[in-house]
Parts: sequence; C-alpha cells; structure tokens
Amino acid sequence: MARAALANAGQSAQALGTVFTPTPLAVEPRTVLKPSQGRNRVLIEDVTPQIDAGRHPVRRIAGDAINVAAAVFADGHDHLGARLLYRHSSEKRWRFTAMAAGVNDLWTGSFKVDKLGSWSFTVLGWIDHFETWASDLEKRIAAQANSQIPASDAMLETVSQDIPLALRSGAILTREAARRARGADAKRLLEISKSLHSLADQNAAFYEYPLSREALALVARYPDLSRATRFEPELTVWVDRERARFSAWYELFPRSASPIPGRHGTFADVERQLPEIADMGFDILYLPPIHPVGRAFRKGPENAVTADADDPGSPWAIGDKAAVKSPAHREDDGGHKSIHPQLGTFAGFDRLVTSTQAHGLEIALDIAFQCSPDHPWVTKHPDWFMIRPDGSIQYAENPPKKYQDIYPLNFESPDWRGLWDELYSVFEFWIRHGVRIFRVDNPHTKAMRFWEWCLTKLRTNYPDTIFLAEAFTRPHIMYWLAKGGFTQSYTYFTWRNTKQELQAYLEEITQPPISDFFRPSFWPNTPDILHKSLQEGGRAAFMQRVILASTLSASYGIYGPAYELGENAAAKPAPGKTESEEYLHSEKYEIRQRDRNAPGSLVPLIRTLNQIRNANPALRTNESLRFHALDNQNLLCYSKSTPDFGNTILVAVNLDFFNEQSGWTDLDLDRLGLSADQPFVVEDLLTGAQYTWQGRRNYVALRPGTQPAHILRIVRRP
Amino acid sequence: MARAALANAGQSAQALGTVFTPTPLAVEPRTVLKPSQGRNRVLIEDVTPQIDAGRHPVRRIAGDAINVAAAVFADGHDHLGARLLYRHSSEKRWRFTAMAAGVNDLWTGSFKVDKLGSWSFTVLGWIDHFETWASDLEKRIAAQANSQIPASDAMLETVSQDIPLALRSGAILTREAARRARGADAKRLLEISKSLHSLADQNAAFYEYPLSREALALVARYPDLSRATRFEPELTVWVDRERARFSAWYELFPRSASPIPGRHGTFADVERQLPEIADMGFDILYLPPIHPVGRAFRKGPENAVTADADDPGSPWAIGDKAAVKSPAHREDDGGHKSIHPQLGTFAGFDRLVTSTQAHGLEIALDIAFQCSPDHPWVTKHPDWFMIRPDGSIQYAENPPKKYQDIYPLNFESPDWRGLWDELYSVFEFWIRHGVRIFRVDNPHTKAMRFWEWCLTKLRTNYPDTIFLAEAFTRPHIMYWLAKGGFTQSYTYFTWRNTKQELQAYLEEITQPPISDFFRPSFWPNTPDILHKSLQEGGRAAFMQRVILASTLSASYGIYGPAYELGENAAAKPAPGKTESEEYLHSEKYEIRQRDRNAPGSLVPLIRTLNQIRNANPALRTNESLRFHALDNQNLLCYSKSTPDFGNTILVAVNLDFFNEQSGWTDLDLDRLGLSADQPFVVEDLLTGAQYTWQGRRNYVALRPGTQPAHILRIVRRP
Repeated sequence: MARAALANAGQSAQALGTVFTPTPLAVEPRTVLKPSQGRNRVLIEDVTPQIDAGRHPVRRIAGDAINVAAAVFADGHDHLGARLLYRHSSEKRWRFTAMAAGVNDLWTGSFKVDKLGSWSFTVLGWIDHFETWASDLEKRIAAQANSQIPASDAMLETVSQDIPLALRSGAILTREAARRARGADAKRLLEISKSLHSLADQNAAFYEYPLSREALALVARYPDLSRATRFEPELTVWVDRERARFSAWYELFPRSASPIPGRHGTFADVERQLPEIADMGFDILYLPPIHPVGRAFRKGPENAVTADADDPGSPWAIGDKAAVKSPAHREDDGGHKSIHPQLGTFAGFDRLVTSTQAHGLEIALDIAFQCSPDHPWVTKHPDWFMIRPDGSIQYAENPPKKYQDIYPLNFESPDWRGLWDELYSVFEFWIRHGVRIFRVDNPHTKAMRFWEWCLTKLRTNYPDTIFLAEAFTRPHIMYWLAKGGFTQSYTYFTWRNTKQELQAYLEEITQPPISDFFRPSFWPNTPDILHKSLQEGGRAAFMQRVILASTLSASYGIYGPAYELGENAAAKPAPGKTESEEYLHSEKYEIRQRDRNAPGSLVPLIRTLNQIRNANPALRTNESLRFHALDNQNLLCYSKSTPDFGNTILVAVNLDFFNEQSGWTDLDLDRLGLSADQPFVVEDLLTGAQYTWQGRRNYVALRPGTQPAHILRIVRRP
Repeated sequence: MARAALANAGQSAQALGTVFTPTPLAVEPRTVLKPSQGRNRVLIEDVTPQIDAGRHPVRRIAGDAINVAAAVFADGHDHLGARLLYRHSSEKRWRFTAMAAGVNDLWTGSFKVDKLGSWSFTVLGWIDHFETWASDLEKRIAAQANSQIPASDAMLETVSQDIPLALRSGAILTREAARRARGADAKRLLEISKSLHSLADQNAAFYEYPLSREALALVARYPDLSRATRFEPELTVWVDRERARFSAWYELFPRSASPIPGRHGTFADVERQLPEIADMGFDILYLPPIHPVGRAFRKGPENAVTADADDPGSPWAIGDKAAVKSPAHREDDGGHKSIHPQLGTFAGFDRLVTSTQAHGLEIALDIAFQCSPDHPWVTKHPDWFMIRPDGSIQYAENPPKKYQDIYPLNFESPDWRGLWDELYSVFEFWIRHGVRIFRVDNPHTKAMRFWEWCLTKLRTNYPDTIFLAEAFTRPHIMYWLAKGGFTQSYTYFTWRNTKQELQAYLEEITQPPISDFFRPSFWPNTPDILHKSLQEGGRAAFMQRVILASTLSASYGIYGPAYELGENAAAKPAPGKTESEEYLHSEKYEIRQRDRNAPGSLVPLIRTLNQIRNANPALRTNESLRFHALDNQNLLCYSKSTPDFGNTILVAVNLDFFNEQSGWTDLDLDRLGLSADQPFVVEDLLTGAQYTWQGRRNYVALRPGTQPAHILRIVRRP
C-alpha cells in the first residue's frame, strides 16, 4: 500500500467527486507478509512522531525539520543500517536520508518539509553485512599484534588470524555491491573486490587494513536492501503555512462598524477600520456569520425571546430565504452562500477581502452549520433535520430550555451524503471568494467523522486553508477535532488563572504527543465569554490576560473593541445561577458602536505585544515553552527560545490584579542557553529598560496596572 | 476481519500445516469504511490494555479479570451506550458485557478469561436515542412545576411543555425496540409504546413520569446498534496457566547428580534427588541441554580450548551424530532430538518426567539452537549455516575471539522455511515426551520473527506450554522477545543491587505497559553469572539476594547446589579484564558433585521462602508491588497485596552485607489496606515473631547473616 490514511481519504474524495471514503476508525494489523520477509531480521518499533498508531497525521509547518526517531534492532551482533524514507503526496518515488544510531537501539533522522500538504514517511532497516565484515576485519587486523604472544592463556588462543579468508568474504560482498551499482561506481567496486582477492592470495604474514575511507563510503552507498524491513504503516505529516501556527486574530461585528450612530454597519465600514486594525499588528480579521439573519423566533436584546422589528437578531441564527434573491434565483438563496443585505453585496465583500490583504491581514469567516427556520435548506431538504412526530422540524433544545430560532442538522440523516456535500460546498463557495481562514462554530455538535472527511478534502484541495475549532468541551472531543483536521483550537485558557493551573495546562498542550496535532489559540474574551477575572479584575486583568495569551501561545485572539475598552459588565445570571459569563448588552443581539481609541484603551499595549511577537521568532512556536521557578505563587515565569537560542524571550507576569508582587527567580539556565553564574543583559520589550541579571536567582517586582509583566529579551550573552 | 494478529498467525499456521504466515510487522490504517458508517457518530479511542496498537497480545492468567477501559464519545449531548465484546478463539459468537461511563468519556468494563489460549476483545459504542429521550422527558416533567411562574423572565419562557409530543417520540422509539425484541419482551414493549401514545392523546394539564424502572430496563435490553461503532483492530489477550506467572525454578546439571564420586550422573540420579528438591518447595526442575555433546573443539575445564578424552564438554555444544544411533537410524540422530548416552535413555527420561510430576514439579528443558560441528544438521543441512568462501562452515566468532565448537544457525538461509519447521519440531518432539516448560538459550541471537511464529504456533497447539527467554541484552530486544511470545524472561535483577536501582527497575517492569507482556524471572545466580556481590558479600549476600528474588518477583530461580552452598569463587578474569562473573571450576565444563545439605547450606532458608510464597497469594503477582519509604539507603521496604488486601506481605531487607542497619519506615498505608494511626499486628514469616506496629512510622533493625530481612504478614487489622 502506497499511501497512509490522510492522503488516501483526500485523494479518494477527489477521485470520486462528491462521494468519498472517510478515513478509518482505527488501525488494524496486517495479516499477510510476503514470504520472503521471513528472512528479514530487523524489527522497527516506536517510530515518532506518530499519532494513535498512524491513525492521524502529525502537524507541521512548511520549512520545519521533521525529526524522526525509531527503535531499529535485530537479533545477534550484526551491524545495522537505517534510512528515513519520505515523500510529498505529489511524489511517486521516496526520497531518503540516512539515520544515525544512538543509545539503546534508537535511531534518528530528519527531513525538511518544503511544500504544503500531505507528506508520508517511514523507516527502512537492514542488516549491513558489509559493515559488520569491515568492522570485524579491523579487529582481526588489530589482533595480529597480540597473536605473537605465547598461547599459554586460553583466551589468547582464540585470537583469529584467518585474515585471508576474511578478505575473500569481503571481496564477495564488494562484488555484490558492484552489481547493485552502475557506471563508474560499479567499476570501482569491482576493482576493490579484485584487490581484496589479490591480497588474500598473498597469504601475507602481517596485513595492513586494506580499505580506504573512500572505498568504505562507496560500498555503503549500495547496501543490500533485499531483506530490509520497512516500518508499517507509513506515517503522515500534514504541512501548513506558518499562519496555522503563528497568528493574531481580531474579531469584530461588521454590523457595529458604522461610525454613524444607529446605522447598520457594512463591509465598507469594516474596510475603513482596516488601517487601525493593521496598525495594532493583527494578522487575521475574523467576522461573525455574514449571512442573512433569520426572522422566526428572532432573539431581541439580552437574548430576549421576542424581538422588535428593527432588532438585528443573532448572526448565528442563519438563513432568511425571503431576504435575498440572486439574479439566478438559486435555491439556496438566503442561506450559507448568501450575504446579509444590510452588510453589503458580494462585490463589497470581495473588495473587503482584497483590501484586507492589502493591509497585510486575512479575512476569517465564521462557519456555523445550523439554520434558522427561514433557511432555504429547511424547505428544500427537510430530511437534513430531525422531524418530530407531528411533522414539524425539531428545534435546538436542552430541556426544559428551547431554542426555537435554531434548527440543528441531523447527521444521522439517510441523505447524509447529500448533506456532507452541501456543507463542503459552503466552504468551497467562500474559498472561491478569496477566503482561506475559517472559524468553525461549535464543531463538537456536528458529526466528527464529517469533519474529518470535509477538512481532509478541503485541505487536500486547498492546502493553504486554516480552520479554527470553536469547541469548549471535554478533552477527548477537543483533541479529536484537532486530530480530525482542525488547524487551530480554542482552549481552556480562559478558565486557567492560577500559576498552577496555567503551568499544568500549558505543559500538557505544548509538548508531544498533544503538540503534534493540537495547536492552541488563546482568547482572553469572546462574544460568548466574559470571564469572572475580567469582570472583577479591572484594567489590570485585561492587561494581564492579553499579555499571557499573546506570549504563552503562538496563536491568540481578542474580541474587540470590547477588549481594548476593557468592557467588563456581565449580563444578569440565568435563573438559579449566581454568575454569568455573558456580556451585558451582548453584541450577539444588538449593534454596539464603540471607539476603540477612547481614553484608557489598551490599543497601545496590544500594538506593542503584536510588535514583540512579530519581531521575536521565539514567540512563533509553543514547543520551546518552559516554566521557571519563582518563589511567589502570584508570579508566573516562563521562556521561549529558538532552537539555537538566537532569540530567547523570558516573561514574568504578576497574576495578582490588585497588589504588587515580588520574588526571586530560579531560572533553568540550560533552557535559556545560558551558562551558570555568568551575567547577562535583558531588555524589557514593554518598557525598553535594560537589566543585568546573573545566574539563576534574580529579583522581580511587578505592579498591576502599570507594570504587570516583564517581557525580556536576552540581548547579550556572556 | 474477524481475528486479530495472534490468533490469525496461529490459526494460519495450523491451517497451512508447516508453512505459515508470520504475524505482521506493524499495523496499518484501514482505508475503507462501509458507506453506512458515515452515520456512525460515536468514536472510540485509547482502548486498554493494548500493546503497540494491537500488534501483540496482552498476557494474563486463567481466572484473571480483564479490565478494559476506552474513551467513547460523540458529537453533541446525546446519551451513549457501550459494550465490551469478547470471545475465546474457539468461539464464533461474541459474548458481551455492558461498559459503565466514568469521568471524561472514559468507559470501563471487565470480563473473565476462564480458558487457556487466545482471546479477542473490542468495544462497541452507540448513540442511545431512547436513553436521551427518557432523560429529556424527566427534565420536561420536572419543568412542569416551574412553568406556572409568570413568564416575566426570558429564561423561564423557554420551559418546554411539549410533553405530549415527546411522549409520541418515545412511543416510536419503544416500538422500534419492540421490533428488535422477540416473544414476551416484544409484546411488552409494544404495550409500553401504545400506553405512551394513549398518554399523549390525553393532553393532560400535568404529567407524572410515565415509565417504570422495569420499562426502562426492558428498552435498554434492545438498543439500536445499526449505527454503532466498533473499535478496530480487535485486541487480543493470551491466557496462560498460573505457572506462567508464579514459579520457582531450580536448575541443576544432571551429569553432576551422581552420588558416586567421578561417575557421570544420569536421569536416575536426578530422580533420586527429587524428594529433596520438592521438599525445598520448587515448582520447576530445569535441566541444561541433555543432548549429545560435540567432540570437535570440545572445551576443557575452565573453558580451555583443548579437552582431555574424558572431559565432558559443554552441554551447550550440542550434537554428536556418532554418539547415537537410534534403531530407526533417523537422519537427525545425535542432535536436538537425541539424549546424551551417558545421561540415559528415552525410557529413563520419560520416567524422570513422570516422577518429577509425582513430586509436584515439572521438568524444564533447555533449548539451545546452535550446533557443534558434529551435529547431524551440519551434514544434512549445510545451507542452514553460513558458508565461508573456502566452503567451510562459519563458526561463532566475536573477532578476534573464535568459538570453533559452535556453529550458529543462519536465519537468512534460503531454506529458512525448512529451518523454521525443523526448529519447531524440536519443541514438539519434547512436548510429546511430556515436557511443557522450556528455557530458551540466547533467543536474542536467533531471528526474532522466527520466535514469534514458532511460539505462537506452539502456544496455539499446546496452550499450557511455558517459555523462559534467556536473553541478557538491550531493553528493546528483551521486551520484544516477550511481546513476540516468550512467557517469562530473565532480567537485569542480577545487576540491580542498590535501593535506587532495585526500585527504579521494579517500578518499570511491574506496571503497565511493560507488565502487560513482560513477566520477569529473577535469578540471583546462573551457571554463567556469579555476580560480584555474591563473590564478595559472603553468606549474607546469598541470603539477601534469594530473599529479594523470591519476594520481589512472582517467578524466580536459582542454579544449585552452587547457590545453597554459597559457592562464590570466580574464575580468573579474561585478559585485559579486572573482573569475571564466571564460576571457578565452572560446571559448564566439568562435573561437580556436591552435597546441598553440607554445613552452612541455605536449604532451610530457601525452603522457608518457598513455603511463604506458596502460602501467601500476595506473592503470586507483581502488579501490586509498592515500595515504601524508609529513612536508610541500605534498607529496602516493599509490599505486595491481593486486590482485596485479604493477604498483604510487607518486606524489609538489609542491602548491606556487613553491617546492621536500622531506620524508620514511612509506610503508604493506603497501599497496605490500613487506616492511619491504627495499630496492626505483623508476623515475621521468617522467624515467627509478632510485632504490633502503628501508623506510617515503625522501627526496623536488620542484621546481615542472622536476620537480614523481615517478611511480614499483616495478620490483624484494626
């Protein structure tokens, strides 16, 4: 079999058109080996990186080195050889690179992924009879010196002097290598073989080692792979562009973007804000759903069950077939492939996409696969929904609560293929309008195998696409969505506030195996979540949480301008609850026009943070994150470095929103690329101040509101 | 596919006769799902126990409960159901048991293996629409009370009163369950369905919950499995008899067993020793190879390269075709299916096997797949060996050392199938002579895939066989041999001497995943290994090491009578070495007649240890092993318990061979089934003394030579 799961699924999808083969549930052992494999003595185990026995692809970024390790071993004492085989899915032939043996049968090798999309790799191992022979010959030659010692000792008697016979064995092995070679190499190998034979014929009393380094290297180029073992299954790596790993998201509601009080915002209004958003240093401008908003059971301000005629409703109640009539009168007019008329036209949208790119940003659309009762699918495909015994369509419910403005899709529909194809086509529709980044609403309430199929097909057809999973649910489901194809994931960051909580969570998600497939995006707020810490911690809390988000995680985002303005008023708690994480006057149900540069705005801090992120490559990845001890439970200390320590960022954050906190670090100097007890200079990138630090212990004092954190770059090494 | 790797390999082997299909190298993802599986919303991951993604079977003992855990989850908020499916390889139909949901989507279930051989299991998960409905209905019914509150609050407005419609949905689900049921159950389910319809028709103002527990349980018996997900691959468990996990081995050289000085021992001499060996409490009597000893290059005493005419040679230099002529003149006479004439005849051997069983022991034979130059295979199958350029057969070498008395087999032979079949037949030959236990010499110098095939086939045909791997090599190879089919394994115990070394090693091998396939056998000595600690530590060292071996590991063994007699003189170190682990006057090369009951013998201690092992079920397994803190680096403290703490053994051992050591325990009382700060009585099973201990801290003082250890049974609980 030539391809592993991911590539297969994607390619089958393309080959078959709309209908497809989902990737498998799990792995199964092969039950047949070719008979000749009975002679293959090498075993290969524990190949990394690997997710669930090859069930899912590892995730990397174009330009990354894939560092592969494997246990390669065999019976006996023969020398082994091992190669790392790899190829892009567009390549038919394997490329390979030699693997090097380390301790305890662990071999390592590395290859660079220079192209987006799916890569495969595996490991080949074989008994290297020539190298075994050459090494033994070296010992035989060396032993000649000792063989003159009188044979009084039993052990010394065993010194071998059978060098001529050994030379003939080597001549045979070299002739076999010649047969595998061509041209000049083959000729040279035959010469070496003959010279070994001639030497053997001399039957000399004493031999010098007969092989040059060049000769050894030449034979090594033509190993006997006829009984080599290849690790199965082939493992896959999905390679994304860098934005998949390193990104700063800015979310805003276009309908609130108008500068004119009371007027519904438009794409053009968003376009006018682009210079400001670009100046803050964001990469991605993320818009909540831009489709027609349903009218049936439309929610009013504060999630009221009734709405006035001019209430805009929730953009996530998608679909109003009455609102849109395209010139072609498409049957899905008013649904996920239409634009809410008050926002503008396709021409306006396309202009916004282009303009966003011109400002160095990209548009991210929100894909929420759910329907208002007015969605065209409700009429055209009632079988895509759950039908109740009275023939009506089942709305969303969490008894006794009902959400009559939302019809969930039924992924157990007999027409699931039709449904899957249509959902896929929604992404493709917007991709054709220039969108490459999608934030997917509540993916954990849609069939997860659908996502695996859909995202695999999309990523295969459009390898530069990025999908952010908005799932806040249990760990297995969060992680499975990432394994199944999402590029980035919302996280539990919002609910991790203490030093211990942050350290434990970050250590989990930034190391393999989790970091091999799960890419976190840290959001201090969203339109759905105004955490208690922000409600109660004031401006200091907003400073602290965005500093943590932007430096702990290579991807982060904020919902603005609520964040810049430190909006912290929460909605009334639901009946029976004492707390609410909903915003008061939530923008989900009404238009909120705001000036992000009002007095006290956090725009300058956010701009600085994004500048720091863009200027320091250490902050572009998560795997180098290390926490350092600091003897105060309110001070969190961590670092990130490039692999060569060319760029090292050391951060200390005061987690207390109200009081100054101070303490002494106990830095893990190895992780900072520093040697013990040497002075080094650090520059605080938030203030420009420089400090000379020394060794593990250094004093830190941080005041909430004014200097809540140090973001230190190590500028001079001893 | 119906069977997993192990079962398949074994069964194919049987089906095809001698030629076979080795089990696979690794696993590969399935690439095709049935189309209907697109509607299967449940995912199943992280099923345990599992070794290398199902590549190898988990090992258990007949009567064990197999505790299975799995992550079972789906999109959305529906209730799920899960079953554990299992069957013995002789069964066509799956048996099943319900799994129970725990935290974070982890489900657990258990089944008992009541039969030797290969078992399969997997997990089935499905969306339980009926249970989801029933749970929602409960909430709807409960919400009726609140629905009378004036609808001033938006949240309260959402209270559902659509109970009649819900009842109709339930009636439909119940009718579907009736279709899956038969007989009285089907009738009763139809009645329930009808009664739900009737209730709905009433359109009552207030509803009681309409379903009895009996009704709910009845519907639960007939879940809709049409869209259930089954975990793949099926996982396998190999079930052995208890001796595989719990055994005490005694090794002796039959040729030294004669009571008459200078006379070569015989099977009859061994038979005469059986009462003594049985009285010491051993289960297995292990004999070094009993085959004809080669004459060419026979080694003399102290491993001398020349031997006198009456030197017996090494039993591991197997084969002398001149020594044996069976009446049938078989072509393999004098090889692995023959008996060294001086030991006796097949009749004598068969009598020894029977007699051993009568004494409650079993014979273990040593299978060493290597040949002396006089072995019949050398003549009949020169292609099973490596041929040198001069046409001679390659002897064993580690240049510059040569071992001309030994020809290793060549597992890269073109006739590898013939070789494999012959080696398999050697085991089968001795199995037919009543042997069920084999100690395999140096398995790591024979092709490991051969072992997997051979042992799988043997265990399938003879499920009560036990194979001990004598491999002292690197961890991956040690572990792979166990994964590949060996029942027990020699270990690094001999070289683990300090408290830290012993704790770290035992913690590694007694916990999953290692303990799921690797069963250690601890040997304080072997004919090849007289460790420095025994050479230098005197009688105290011999006491301490056998106490450790017999209580740390459920399987252990000694090489006697050298061990009982505390023989500690080592051979001269090899040239260039400062130490030797070889015995002086090694029994490998000469006959050594000894009286194991000579003054100072350790027979009484060993007898006591085996009595303790047999009387205390806690010592029959390793998984319950726990180390307890003790504030002296020379005192090792550990415990083993039965799962219900019905039998708990607490051991403290003085690791210092020369000085009394004392200290205070810090017992982990939870692991002993004790509550804090309550007094408890312990009985020292070595001395009979009783002590009243209390809480975590208790005083221990141990003197080498006289009281080197406490083996305490907790006899009374507070």
